[in-house]
Amino acid sequence: MSLFIGLDLGGTNLKYALGTGDGDLVVRYSKPSLAFQRQNKIFENMFSAVEQLMDEAARRGETVVAIGVGSPGCVDFEIGQLLGSTPNFEDWTDAPIKQRFEERFHLPTWVDNDANMMALAESRKGAGKGYRSILCATLGTGIGGGMVMNGEVYRGSHYSAAEIGHIVIEINGRPCNCGNRGCLEAYAAAPAIVDRYRQKLKRFGVMFEIQGLNTETIFLKASLNEDLAKETIIETCDYLGTGLASVANIIDPDLIILGGGVAEAGDEFIQRIEQSVKQNAIGAIARKIRVVKGKLDVDAGIIGAILLAAENFAAKKAK
Amino acid sequence: MSLFIGLDLGGTNLKYALGTGDGDLVVRYSKPSLAFQRQNKIFENMFSAVEQLMDEAARRGETVVAIGVGSPGCVDFEIGQLLGSTPNFEDWTDAPIKQRFEERFHLPTWVDNDANMMALAESRKGAGKGYRSILCATLGTGIGGGMVMNGEVYRGSHYSAAEIGHIVIEINGRPCNCGNRGCLEAYAAAPAIVDRYRQKLKRFGVMFEIQGLNTETIFLKASLNEDLAKETIIETCDYLGTGLASVANIIDPDLIILGGGVAEAGDEFIQRIEQSVKQNAIGAIARKIRVVKGKLDVDAGIIGAILLAAENFAAKKAK
Repeated sequence: MSLFIGLDLGGTNLKYALGTGDGDLVVRYSKPSLAFQRQNKIFENMFSAVEQLMDEAARRGETVVAIGVGSPGCVDFEIGQLLGSTPNFEDWTDAPIKQRFEERFHLPTWVDNDANMMALAESRKGAGKGYRSILCATLGTGIGGGMVMNGEVYRGSHYSAAEIGHIVIEINGRPCNCGNRGCLEAYAAAPAIVDRYRQKLKRFGVMFEIQGLNTETIFLKASLNEDLAKETIIETCDYLGTGLASVANIIDPDLIILGGGVAEAGDEFIQRIEQSVKQNAIGAIARKIRVVKGKLDVDAGIIGAILLAAENFAAKKAK
Repeated sequence: MSLFIGLDLGGTNLKYALGTGDGDLVVRYSKPSLAFQRQNKIFENMFSAVEQLMDEAARRGETVVAIGVGSPGCVDFEIGQLLGSTPNFEDWTDAPIKQRFEERFHLPTWVDNDANMMALAESRKGAGKGYRSILCATLGTGIGGGMVMNGEVYRGSHYSAAEIGHIVIEINGRPCNCGNRGCLEAYAAAPAIVDRYRQKLKRFGVMFEIQGLNTETIFLKASLNEDLAKETIIETCDYLGTGLASVANIIDPDLIILGGGVAEAGDEFIQRIEQSVKQNAIGAIARKIRVVKGKLDVDAGIIGAILLAAENFAAKKAK
């Protein structure tokens, strides 16, 4: 049987796996991604992961036929290269991933943005299975997005589609890391949630700094009925619902799938976001759209990378 | 030569034309659309337009092989039927356009939303020619949108894509006709522009009501350096730029094409919107996107309808 290698490069870990053409994982591993090292080191780290997986395949009497790589940042899918830099990586600017991999392994390699990989995986094997068009939103330190439209990953004309963290929900609003103001990310990404909660505490007269405050502790406090935490979460759902409804009014997907750390906050959180999306979206979208949590969790990225390799390999062979 | 009939049903006029498979118009006409009459009357009015064009074709020794219809409202493209109602039409709810036309003329008929028709026409023969993905925005009494993505009209899972008038640019902002608050349309559609200008006048102490105030007079006053009118226009460009940048951050098109009455306000207006889009969009989109006026003007709708018929007829034959 022909197997595929998938790599999911993150700011902390590199996940890597061997899988079938259907995206079923045969083995999966994880190790530090060395994000703060030089580009060459990051590549060597990825190459040794590939070698390990090829040995693994050989031991099983199988052949690896193609490689898929998911990377943060804007990726030129045609040439398989980063466009510019990406946060959390010091020396990953313009990294020529496809070229380096193909030179090294003489295997066809495809590279795409990590949020697109999540969208592909959830669309084929996760919460989006059976749907034509889905939007995946990753809620974490930033808010990212990936779209599958009419069954295909939609990348946009400059490989910059689905930047849903940077739609403006309040003109001239809170400053965002991107330099603009009022972006969804500036209200509903993890640091913004923590910041809004801190401001509420301050207004309430809490003058000391709470150590180790993060979204998990805020969700915990909310579940224990702490008023300001609850208020913070309810507002977060409204911000996310408003932003995601705007996105839905534009691309009219069947389904919005939530992933990322913040999406782990529980069913009530997801339901409240769905409610807000339905209140803010129009017509048929409001009536029919659903908001759900992703099904593939931390494996979405590598499953997506394996599917990326498998689908593009099949399409190439068919030509 | 095989010819195609295109109809563009508007709130005021029905435009209808005979054209080639390339979307070149052979003849074009216009007559009142009878929007406030019963559904049957509107159909009979459209049917007599088709008969007139078929006579015209016969006189030229040509055959009409398919019909394309653009209608306002949400159109189920598969069955060629309105989904629900549409403003300005009293009895157009759920109108079964494709069925009625095919029963009457025994010619294959395709029906789509009028903004999609504009996008198709501008993409094939207008300002968007040669580009892969474009967004058309119609600025008028409402703000509508149509998208061509990777060369195809993108309709969404519920035929409701590109509702760009209803993305929220200010959470809990100005009330919108759709029932929501803060929608782009509530700030930058023609009635909102007039309303914002009126409020400025009021704040400035002008207590009498200005008769016949509309966007044209405001643009005229702005061109004559009237401060409040200028302020109103500059704000309008910021609202539009913010909203269109959000849309661009999601679908990452090559080009945004503006149409509709408000887009007639002149080059400076368009340029200022482009500037604001570039300020508000991120990364590669900000650097590369362009905002231009449509090239096909009032004919975009019928050219789109003819292309809709021609392209779907060709695809059907190819099967």
